[in-house]
Amino acid sequence: MRLLAADTAAAAREKLQTEIELAGWVHRIRDMGGVSFVILRDRSGLVQLVFDEKPVDSSGLPLTLESVIRVRGEAALNEKAPGGAELRIASGGLEVISRAAPELPFQVNGDPSKIGIEAILDNRTLSLRNPKIRSIFRIQATIIEAFSAYLRSQGFTEIKTSKLVGSGTEGGTNLFEVEYFDRKVFLAQSPQFYKEVMVASGLERVFEVAPAYRAEKHDTPRHLNEYVSLDVEMGFIDSELDLIELEKGLLAHIFEEVARKNATDLEVWEAAVPNAASAGASPVVPYEEALKIANEENAKGKRPSAGARLFDINPEAERLICDWSLREHGSALVFVNEFPRRYRPFYTYPKDLGDGQATSTMSFDALFRGLEITTGGRRQHDYDAFLEALPKFGLKAEHFEGYLNLLKYGCPPHGGFAVGCERLTQKILGLANVKEASLFPRDRKRVDP
Amino acid sequence: MRLLAADTAAAAREKLQTEIELAGWVHRIRDMGGVSFVILRDRSGLVQLVFDEKPVDSSGLPLTLESVIRVRGEAALNEKAPGGAELRIASGGLEVISRAAPELPFQVNGDPSKIGIEAILDNRTLSLRNPKIRSIFRIQATIIEAFSAYLRSQGFTEIKTSKLVGSGTEGGTNLFEVEYFDRKVFLAQSPQFYKEVMVASGLERVFEVAPAYRAEKHDTPRHLNEYVSLDVEMGFIDSELDLIELEKGLLAHIFEEVARKNATDLEVWEAAVPNAASAGASPVVPYEEALKIANEENAKGKRPSAGARLFDINPEAERLICDWSLREHGSALVFVNEFPRRYRPFYTYPKDLGDGQATSTMSFDALFRGLEITTGGRRQHDYDAFLEALPKFGLKAEHFEGYLNLLKYGCPPHGGFAVGCERLTQKILGLANVKEASLFPRDRKRVDP
Repeated sequence: MRLLAADTAAAAREKLQTEIELAGWVHRIRDMGGVSFVILRDRSGLVQLVFDEKPVDSSGLPLTLESVIRVRGEAALNEKAPGGAELRIASGGLEVISRAAPELPFQVNGDPSKIGIEAILDNRTLSLRNPKIRSIFRIQATIIEAFSAYLRSQGFTEIKTSKLVGSGTEGGTNLFEVEYFDRKVFLAQSPQFYKEVMVASGLERVFEVAPAYRAEKHDTPRHLNEYVSLDVEMGFIDSELDLIELEKGLLAHIFEEVARKNATDLEVWEAAVPNAASAGASPVVPYEEALKIANEENAKGKRPSAGARLFDINPEAERLICDWSLREHGSALVFVNEFPRRYRPFYTYPKDLGDGQATSTMSFDALFRGLEITTGGRRQHDYDAFLEALPKFGLKAEHFEGYLNLLKYGCPPHGGFAVGCERLTQKILGLANVKEASLFPRDRKRVDP
Repeated sequence: MRLLAADTAAAAREKLQTEIELAGWVHRIRDMGGVSFVILRDRSGLVQLVFDEKPVDSSGLPLTLESVIRVRGEAALNEKAPGGAELRIASGGLEVISRAAPELPFQVNGDPSKIGIEAILDNRTLSLRNPKIRSIFRIQATIIEAFSAYLRSQGFTEIKTSKLVGSGTEGGTNLFEVEYFDRKVFLAQSPQFYKEVMVASGLERVFEVAPAYRAEKHDTPRHLNEYVSLDVEMGFIDSELDLIELEKGLLAHIFEEVARKNATDLEVWEAAVPNAASAGASPVVPYEEALKIANEENAKGKRPSAGARLFDINPEAERLICDWSLREHGSALVFVNEFPRRYRPFYTYPKDLGDGQATSTMSFDALFRGLEITTGGRRQHDYDAFLEALPKFGLKAEHFEGYLNLLKYGCPPHGGFAVGCERLTQKILGLANVKEASLFPRDRKRVDP
């Protein structure tokens, strides 16, 4: 029976079997003349194989990097070997299951930081074999698991909604068009309408993990045209502050789980997650105050791009506000709420800051290590108010029949938010480009593999 | 602080608070002259409210069905009330949060079995409020949770792959086309290629929960054009039997979890899941034998549609084989393996049944209560064999560059399968049409809501 690389040390200590079997990929080959060292890679990690003779396959061909092999031998402790043990291969103990072509187009066992992102993505089927690159996606799996588990513990139900929609929530821009039999539909930018339907259905608290699409033409280190949206929606809230409290607890749990399950993966990237207490205590700053802070930080000129006055919370302001939050509050996470009306979709619930004008909204962004990872807010749930808002935004009621039907028959106050899964992954690990945190990223030029 | 309907009995027994607060939807109103009974619905269930006077909102308008209200009152035990308790509403203890229009286009508190599926789907935002209909999706949430949890316990890693692909795995038929900037791409029919990449990347064992698309024109009770695919892929297998063993354990766990968490939901549908032991002991029948069994069953003429000889395992044969399995093996689940070459995609791993011709394949279907819920098999992992098979199926190597790159650099023997989430939900509950098990189903005519 096959054991895993990580079991080798225990097998050597316990000596329960004289011979054990391992299988995996040839990660590295070192020919020392009389003896050859091969590093074998499997899902559990790396282990050293020792051959007394030059390893060859049944046709006498030499072993190649990335070939899949099965080996039998005796496990022995060796402090110098990775994991503290090695396997000494018996004569005839090597079987080449799948021989890799000798010339690899991508150096799998190299340091990915020395390879440009285009080469990493162009050779995706091979670059994902690199242990450091693969570790990104083990962390991402934990993020998704922890996100779901935390929300279930708070009474949320998981939903799966359609990604093919007749029209977009935000009014039809930046949508990918799909030929759907004899008509055209669009790829959903967000499951928001469906989340709201499910809150109003009586589930009250729902979440979804699913792809979302933005047909935006810009190609930046923070944008993907297809991303995994971690979506949340909740009924019977008073304001965006209820959502911020929920997200603090959610992110604190995700950070805890990543620290617990992915210690090795974090180490490889020399990365650390914030501790749960600091996430729980992260500051909540109203928009106007946050903009003032960004300009004060900017005036200090510590960022290389510092300079002209900031008139809104753009990506540069996001970085400056995060600098401030970390320094003043010890928190890598900061929430900005009360976004002005003009920055938010028409259905965002108004907030009156005391001037009787309701120029503000019950909305927020979460910024983490300089990047916006969440947008959210309370939504308008009142039928009349919704209907009244439409013409003010130049919108027509007939395009919002679904929404109006939803609100017409009893809808609780509600709101929600979405966490960009790739952005969160990127910022946990300090990756330069969000595309590195997508298994098969899609951008304007890239749809392959 | 708001409590839930389900907490009312405990509040009545403990009398810790003189007055409690509930919130939810008006499910039913019974005006008895001096006293009014209102059934309130929230995410936890139903509870009876007792009003000493006719309940009206602050403008004096009568309460309407589906309005969202908040109430305060004293909890009291009452054996005749649903859940064994009721809330006696204090004077001024009613707040109408969102008044529903008086004429509902769909009777939310009715029996859905008396309403046709078209009306249920046309009025989806309202029909999902029906407790019986909503319970379908609580079970579906458990299926997804249990699927993921079981696979994690077996060393699988969750992945999220792109749904926009340059071409289809199966060669380009039945694909929806997407306008992607200045080119055309397709919606993925299956994540299969990406699952295989991730197995070969060294993760070895992966799963994905994501939408999948089939542009099939037929409209039957077993087809959806968009569905949730529960996908699994695993390296270092010997044959399809390893996959069948995995799926038996997986389904047994799902059944156990649904029985444990959704007892009430099952009861509403008068449904039951198979016990875990019977799922674990379900028979595995080779294709030719299964076809023979189907014809023998058919000859008995017990099914209304029984008749002409069956030449392949069509939907009628699937029902007959399930009849046989349940009667002879006490199992609602049965696996058919060794499908002939002609029924399977070219990349399915060949199986030699002893005639030296390899006319069979290491493939299988899982049939559950008369319906195919899974297709799977071992895949060809050998570069030369894959390349050799292409022209035999009339296919060209240049269309399979991705696959060839995958196999060229060391790929372990592997295989996988997918469970149709909506079909499994449908068959657990005995729903007549798979569309009932999709929140927002997509068929040739329906893309709304």
